[in-house]
Amino acid sequence: MHAPKVTNQPTIKRLPSYLHIIESAQRDGKEYISGTVIAEELKLEPIQVRKDLALTGIVGKPRIGFPVDELIRAIYSFLEWDREHRAILVGAGNLGTALMGYREFNKRGMNIVAAFDLDKNKIGNSHHGTPVYSLGQMSEKIAEIGVDMAILTVPSGHAQAVADLLVRAGIQAIWNFTNIKLKVPEDVIVQKEDLSSGYAVLSVKMRLTHSQTANAEV
Amino acid sequence: MHAPKVTNQPTIKRLPSYLHIIESAQRDGKEYISGTVIAEELKLEPIQVRKDLALTGIVGKPRIGFPVDELIRAIYSFLEWDREHRAILVGAGNLGTALMGYREFNKRGMNIVAAFDLDKNKIGNSHHGTPVYSLGQMSEKIAEIGVDMAILTVPSGHAQAVADLLVRAGIQAIWNFTNIKLKVPEDVIVQKEDLSSGYAVLSVKMRLTHSQTANAEV
Repeated sequence: MHAPKVTNQPTIKRLPSYLHIIESAQRDGKEYISGTVIAEELKLEPIQVRKDLALTGIVGKPRIGFPVDELIRAIYSFLEWDREHRAILVGAGNLGTALMGYREFNKRGMNIVAAFDLDKNKIGNSHHGTPVYSLGQMSEKIAEIGVDMAILTVPSGHAQAVADLLVRAGIQAIWNFTNIKLKVPEDVIVQKEDLSSGYAVLSVKMRLTHSQTANAEV
Repeated sequence: MHAPKVTNQPTIKRLPSYLHIIESAQRDGKEYISGTVIAEELKLEPIQVRKDLALTGIVGKPRIGFPVDELIRAIYSFLEWDREHRAILVGAGNLGTALMGYREFNKRGMNIVAAFDLDKNKIGNSHHGTPVYSLGQMSEKIAEIGVDMAILTVPSGHAQAVADLLVRAGIQAIWNFTNIKLKVPEDVIVQKEDLSSGYAVLSVKMRLTHSQTANAEV
């Protein structure tokens, strides 16, 4: 069996930003929110927002918009954020520690139940409630705890070796924050996080601003 | 003047992953790389890869592919990663420190020249060669150094106040790692980084795998 291909990745990536805005409308006591309002907040086209949200099965009413509570439930259900995802984290360095402290993950169903590291100074500590164990205990702990996914924040040089250990321990989904393209069996899901993606967009926006300014100066 | 809208954001976000693969072909001494090979590596459709790369102005030759050196130069030039982007970082916590140590940024033209924090234990230190100053010195240092962009990694509660300070100091581009939707003048670029986006894609892939397995069991 192959890991599934997700064809509408750009849409799925936008859902968390929609959720922020819709939840803020909910906190403000609103019952409905229009696609146009969401589009303006995120600088997207309204048609794009409506198409994206249709994926969750909720259709807005003309002139009224989307029912807030129902839409939030539909997004949670679409992403399965309404159930717990038990995660472990490997590599309790700066990035790993930052992710353990990222409270939004918790709200979105992710529970980082254990972290692993090689550094004796880190083992035995806990960060934001997550205990840090030695890498040697990993397979045993995975079997004991029951884990849905692993977050990989080790130095790139160790990435493949740790991924091999994770696969051997039965992990089916890896969120890869390293620079390495991991080699894993075809049925293992790898989601690679690339911090350079956002920097690429920012760079193009800066370039466009420079040329706007240059044009304005002509 | 408004901050520019970037319409082909999904394409731009994919360029860094293309770059990884093309640079690895370059290290292997290859002169040409085919769109199909890139597509297979990234599990994309070949037509998507060719359309994306056309944005840089380079067109592949049938049966031969794209000239590796030329394509790398074209991507660098499209993203303006062939010139220096001087950045400051505000908030030298775990995430900020992780970003200061992220060597790939350096290769991509980003130079984090200074960091700022409120914590007296951090001020005066330096991380991966980047000195940490007090927040009170920020405006003065920005004027002195000459800065293209600011990376915002402060706790969410301080995000808007720090963004106001950055705008007042003349910063035109903010890479926002906080959860806050910043209010800034229309000509200031904000790129919001949302770590939940990757988690959303991973969650959908895990859900699809579960339903594959469930079907297989029927």
